Amino acid sequence: MTDSEHMRGVFITFEGVDGVGKTTQVERLRDWLESSGHEVVVTREPGGTPLGKAIRGLLLHGVPVDSADSSDSADIAPRAEALLFAADRAQHVAEVIHPALERGAVVISDRYIDSSLAYQAGGRELTAEEIRSLSMWATNGLLPDRTFLLDMDPALSHRRLGRAEDRMEAAGDDFQHRTRRAFLDLADAEPDRFRVIDASGTVDAVELAIRTDIERALAEPRNP
Amino acid sequence: MTDSEHMRGVFITFEGVDGVGKTTQVERLRDWLESSGHEVVVTREPGGTPLGKAIRGLLLHGVPVDSADSSDSADIAPRAEALLFAADRAQHVAEVIHPALERGAVVISDRYIDSSLAYQAGGRELTAEEIRSLSMWATNGLLPDRTFLLDMDPALSHRRLGRAEDRMEAAGDDFQHRTRRAFLDLADAEPDRFRVIDASGTVDAVELAIRTDIERALAEPRNP
Repeated sequence: MTDSEHMRGVFITFEGVDGVGKTTQVERLRDWLESSGHEVVVTREPGGTPLGKAIRGLLLHGVPVDSADSSDSADIAPRAEALLFAADRAQHVAEVIHPALERGAVVISDRYIDSSLAYQAGGRELTAEEIRSLSMWATNGLLPDRTFLLDMDPALSHRRLGRAEDRMEAAGDDFQHRTRRAFLDLADAEPDRFRVIDASGTVDAVELAIRTDIERALAEPRNP
Repeated sequence: MTDSEHMRGVFITFEGVDGVGKTTQVERLRDWLESSGHEVVVTREPGGTPLGKAIRGLLLHGVPVDSADSSDSADIAPRAEALLFAADRAQHVAEVIHPALERGAVVISDRYIDSSLAYQAGGRELTAEEIRSLSMWATNGLLPDRTFLLDMDPALSHRRLGRAEDRMEAAGDDFQHRTRRAFLDLADAEPDRFRVIDASGTVDAVELAIRTDIERALAEPRNP
């Protein structure tokens, strides 16, 4: 039995490569749900908790090289990186997501398990099955009720970004294309959980597509 | 196939509760092996790499509570803690232990996988099988050739310590007794890998027991 059962709230995640507009859509969905009387908890990965913020600093910027310790060995090993993302997620679920769902809130997370699958398994040397097992253990099996994949051509999202690249982004355009493909494959494999949204449209059009889906889902009777 | 195969070096670990004299014995074994002409790499967990040191800071001292973020929620969740230890170990193996073994060195680590099993599985809510799976994945299956368990009554090791307790130690005497028992159970389960050393004897007596075992092991022909 997993934590997904016996939960009163609704767990929604947003996925997609950087620059597709996740943050804007998360805020709009929150405002709309709150105006409808829902308690909404907005959160993010990596870095959704104080511990997660500390981990995020290590993951995005690497480890400052201590000249007394090493010279060129500050790269994070792939397994260590995967375990750090999983640790961030475990803390995030235990401290933020699980308690909010228990009290019946709508939780909206900007990135969750699918980002690990798309970025780490899609772009690096570990298999998707390894990353999935790690994440499912970290979260005690908690999957979202709905995942919105905001999808667009990486060339467009890259132009929209217009800011300095971090360690992940610096891996380059091929990496972005592979990651987009990995997200789409994940959506294909779980059509009940995923909705793929064309994120090249206007902000209003994307918002409407998301809102329509959520309205329908909230209107349906839920399993006890 | 695991990383343990096709390795030219020798991997030795020291285990036991705090205060049993691991650090002293690690130094003596290093000095003796170096005087015999071996390349010796001495290392430790947690914190055997720059990344590991950053992780160790989070694990031992917890997360500084940011008043803007939370009030009383800075405890590290058990699964997050286990994943952070595993991340430290993954980096430690990839950056320090594996390269040293590849070039034929003797690697001596102050704590390794058995500390995770004894402290986390013995004293907390996770099962030994979960912790073992996590650690074996983190290390790509690398186990020590020899593990010295320095064993003594926790009441004695506690008196020997005579210093401020960290977060782990502050869990109390019952925890120390449970952990000692967990270490002894691990040794019982793998008699080929473990040597249990009575650490209540003099430093010289403990050193002699370790040296005698290593001399015998190094004299034996190794598998190709």
